[in-house]
Amino acid sequence: MDDFLNSTSVVPEFVGTREIGDTIGMCIPSVDPTLLDQLHITKRYSVLGVLSARSGAGAHIMAMDEAVKATNTEVIDIELPRDTKGGAGHGSLILIGGYDPSDVRSAINVALDNLSRTFGDVYNSAAGHLELQFTARASGACHMAFGAPEGKAYGLICGAPAGIGVVMADTAIKTAGVNVLSFASPAHGTSFSNEGMVHISGDSGAVRQAVIAGREVGLKLLAELGDTPVNDFPSYIK
Amino acid sequence: MDDFLNSTSVVPEFVGTREIGDTIGMCIPSVDPTLLDQLHITKRYSVLGVLSARSGAGAHIMAMDEAVKATNTEVIDIELPRDTKGGAGHGSLILIGGYDPSDVRSAINVALDNLSRTFGDVYNSAAGHLELQFTARASGACHMAFGAPEGKAYGLICGAPAGIGVVMADTAIKTAGVNVLSFASPAHGTSFSNEGMVHISGDSGAVRQAVIAGREVGLKLLAELGDTPVNDFPSYIK
Amino acid sequence: MDDFLNSTSVVPEFVGTREIGDTIGMCIPSVDPTLLDQLHITKRYSVLGVLSARSGAGAHIMAMDEAVKATNTEVIDIELPRDTKGGAGHGSLILIGGYDPSDVRSAINVALDNLSRTFGDVYNSAAGHLELQFTARASGACHMAFGAPEGKAYGLICGAPAGIGVVMADTAIKTAGVNVLSFASPAHGTSFSNEGMVHISGDSGAVRQAVIAGREVGLKLLAELGDTPVNDFPSYIK
Repeated sequence: MDDFLNSTSVVPEFVGTREIGDTIGMCIPSVDPTLLDQLHITKRYSVLGVLSARSGAGAHIMAMDEAVKATNTEVIDIELPRDTKGGAGHGSLILIGGYDPSDVRSAINVALDNLSRTFGDVYNSAAGHLELQFTARASGACHMAFGAPEGKAYGLICGAPAGIGVVMADTAIKTAGVNVLSFASPAHGTSFSNEGMVHISGDSGAVRQAVIAGREVGLKLLAELGDTPVNDFPSYIK
Repeated sequence: MDDFLNSTSVVPEFVGTREIGDTIGMCIPSVDPTLLDQLHITKRYSVLGVLSARSGAGAHIMAMDEAVKATNTEVIDIELPRDTKGGAGHGSLILIGGYDPSDVRSAINVALDNLSRTFGDVYNSAAGHLELQFTARASGACHMAFGAPEGKAYGLICGAPAGIGVVMADTAIKTAGVNVLSFASPAHGTSFSNEGMVHISGDSGAVRQAVIAGREVGLKLLAELGDTPVNDFPSYIK
Repeated sequence: MDDFLNSTSVVPEFVGTREIGDTIGMCIPSVDPTLLDQLHITKRYSVLGVLSARSGAGAHIMAMDEAVKATNTEVIDIELPRDTKGGAGHGSLILIGGYDPSDVRSAINVALDNLSRTFGDVYNSAAGHLELQFTARASGACHMAFGAPEGKAYGLICGAPAGIGVVMADTAIKTAGVNVLSFASPAHGTSFSNEGMVHISGDSGAVRQAVIAGREVGLKLLAELGDTPVNDFPSYIK
């Protein structure tokens, strides 16, 4: 065992990591067909990209949404473990497919680079967390994960513990005329996470306004449970 | 962001918090109808009460059971996230409905005040926890969450790790003649929590006796895994 | 309460504990029939054995697999809570049945004793974990939990976060000609754990070779997320 335990050589599938969320990105240039038969994917590709994290679901999905826009790749599976290392939310497993390993590797790199942006409106405190996401043009990842219409603006407004997300959603929807795609809660549309989250779509300005309004009330409510929620990266929704 | 990050103003929906379980109570005087369409509720009310916590399910359900008895409100949703901040059990999201915001706010306050009682027989150790609950007259929350017949005595006997709950249930049922409503375990009737719990109903004295017997054996078994389990509030089941 | 809180007497159902995984083993010599009606078991036995843990699923299932081989007992329920005390994996609740309490108690003891072996290839780091299991002859526990053909060699190759398990599975399958029974991931075949795991069967030498190859790549990938993964007991798969 010592031999490879002390090994520093990186395996060929490795693409990169990010400390945020304990995130790792990998690429399998030619997946074993018998494994491919067992994977739960929407479309069969022999070149597979993998983005996996202990903490972060919306942030990773939004990051991958940008990545598939920028490359010739496609999202073929999104699964949300009940994780966050004792926190209230999800981790993520995202599989993408492509025809060229270099496309897939660059897609994974684009996603990894986007995490410092998409974690910008994730606010944590000892009692819970908030997550806000916004895109002016949703792509395949948002569509598969949240049912967002592709090409239209999409917003995610999430609070934990879940009840905070209920009030955030109500405030957000009242603020601007948006389409409510769905409301996810511990028993519906989550993996039993302690989150309440609304998925909205519509006019870009209205969606952004709703997300900002949800964030404002969420930060005030979560702060009532103790310390002020803080984000690890600068907010990107302005 | 700084502006509202440093804000100390409380939003109008806020009712109160309790440190135990990271619990927050809120009231939405007039829910947005498009959000109401997306909520998973048994009955449509425009005045919504929200009780949400990171840790505690039985304790919050029992507290809300008293609250709906004491006010003109109704339980319309109970969801159990797999939470407890790394512990073995559940958090909770409970929604109630009413016709008058003052009724709903007072129901939430009654529930918050009851937590120091309903957490009285929740015992924690580094290895797991036990939860015992008893009511001489079950109401809407116990009925929705556990299938308890309303108006009759109800008892909950729970142990974590789950195997301890199996032995607690066996001991409790053998102690007194009670009706076994159901047995919940990691794959059945829980959100994959590591709990074994039996729901019992019947004569008030018998149910209480069974709960106390389950508690006694549970405390001995959980103590075998290390330190003595302790409760944060005085026991109420005597 | 003080009376029994300070009690050091052990209840008759108690068999033993192991610190690893916060594991407790118990035996109920004659289960209450009304409880038996509510348990989710494949076959009705009045003598019940219980193995329960906060952390560990594969390790406990493999340990019980040896125990039922060595005794006149049968596995009648395996449930996997989403636990590990904030980690990425499962705990376990395993029920066995028998005709003689001494058989069942010895089966539980055999399982407890096997844990120091079956945890030998469980590697943990701050970012995640790996689990490898191998048996030359699968029995009832592996069959019920993983669909392993009884009497044939079985291997488990698991990585967390889940994406690491995808690459481990691909590498393992490519290494030797084995039958892929299934691939489990956060949304399929797990309790929303953050694990990717492949279940393989076939020729003993090939299965062992595949498991070792999966372990090698898994240790390198998980190490990329920070510290070197370590096992609490000596590796048994050589």
